[in-house]
Amino acid sequence: MEENRLIKQLAFIKEIDKLKYIVRKTRLFNSDRHENDAEHSWHLAMMVLVLAEHSNEEVDILRVLKMLLIHDIVEIDAGDTFLFDGAKDHLNSDEELVAAERIFGLLPEEQKNEFMSIWQDFEAGETADAKFAKSLDRFEPVLQNLSNGGGTWAEFNVPQDRVMQKISPIKPGSQVLWDYTEEAIEEGLKQGSLIKVDEKFVMAGESKATTILR
Amino acid sequence: MEENRLIKQLAFIKEIDKLKYIVRKTRLFNSDRHENDAEHSWHLAMMVLVLAEHSNEEVDILRVLKMLLIHDIVEIDAGDTFLFDGAKDHLNSDEELVAAERIFGLLPEEQKNEFMSIWQDFEAGETADAKFAKSLDRFEPVLQNLSNGGGTWAEFNVPQDRVMQKISPIKPGSQVLWDYTEEAIEEGLKQGSLIKVDEKFVMAGESKATTILR
Repeated sequence: MEENRLIKQLAFIKEIDKLKYIVRKTRLFNSDRHENDAEHSWHLAMMVLVLAEHSNEEVDILRVLKMLLIHDIVEIDAGDTFLFDGAKDHLNSDEELVAAERIFGLLPEEQKNEFMSIWQDFEAGETADAKFAKSLDRFEPVLQNLSNGGGTWAEFNVPQDRVMQKISPIKPGSQVLWDYTEEAIEEGLKQGSLIKVDEKFVMAGESKATTILR
Repeated sequence: MEENRLIKQLAFIKEIDKLKYIVRKTRLFNSDRHENDAEHSWHLAMMVLVLAEHSNEEVDILRVLKMLLIHDIVEIDAGDTFLFDGAKDHLNSDEELVAAERIFGLLPEEQKNEFMSIWQDFEAGETADAKFAKSLDRFEPVLQNLSNGGGTWAEFNVPQDRVMQKISPIKPGSQVLWDYTEEAIEEGLKQGSLIKVDEKFVMAGESKATTILR
């Protein structure tokens, strides 16, 4: 074995520990505790294992797993992009590309190339695997927000039509999960676990947030 | 689609969120922050993707990934078992089996059966997949402790021979990672990033721990 190879691989393994410090806006289920990117990536990986049958198209489970395990690693350098932050367009930004080159570049060449290719496939969102991966990436915060009286939708006072537009990438990946999402939001509004004022979500029930981020 | 099926799957997805609250004794790299089981599981999954070539035997990467993603879910009910806790024998305890039945039992029958079978395969540690998975599960804390002046080995004043015995499951999974481990520990002792007093590890350098757990 080329010794240098293992050293490069371990440098990458140590570097990606930093994903555990990248804090998302969304909170854990029924909780005021923010989720970090490593926890989020694990949860999405579990969702592929359990929900793959609901993909619109047949997917390569191993490839979707790889996508979701690595999809946020660029945020170690580029930071978390909040879904409702209007200032960022959520496209594969230059900053993220530089981050991917640096971090995946710690690995031996062919492993770097594989991760770059998988990450770019995810970002482009055109293959069946990427569509399903993106679907789950949007679906997890829906479940979290539904459990948290509206969660980030209410914390940031987002109009319902903007929410629906932002989570609409669930649909090309999984009609089943999209139907569930639409029904669960309607049901939440009917039952009062979600509340709208002037078409914008506001916090339902006691806010579990100890500090509201604005 | 059987609607009940999706409801069961989502009940499982929500339940396993609790893994994010199960705190391990080990700390993040160069840090005083404890790791939780979800972060740990994500990191191990990344290690399979990067280090699979170092397995002694050929492994089914998808199966090893599944093993590592689910291997600690039983700790939601049974709690974290610390490697150097002499009171527990780290075998597949009755408590863990009850936990597995309850948590995996939230899923539709055939998904429950698959996860039970994968988890039991991991616990038994006899197949090539399980040996490599266990190897990584022991190797991650080695890397963490090496970066933290001895980490849990020093915090809990563990004799070096006990450390070597407890981390020896690295070897049947990967001779390459075992050789690296032995060399890195010797090198650490030589360079002073690891310190022994009376054959027991003690904290090297300024402890990064804000509170020492005993």
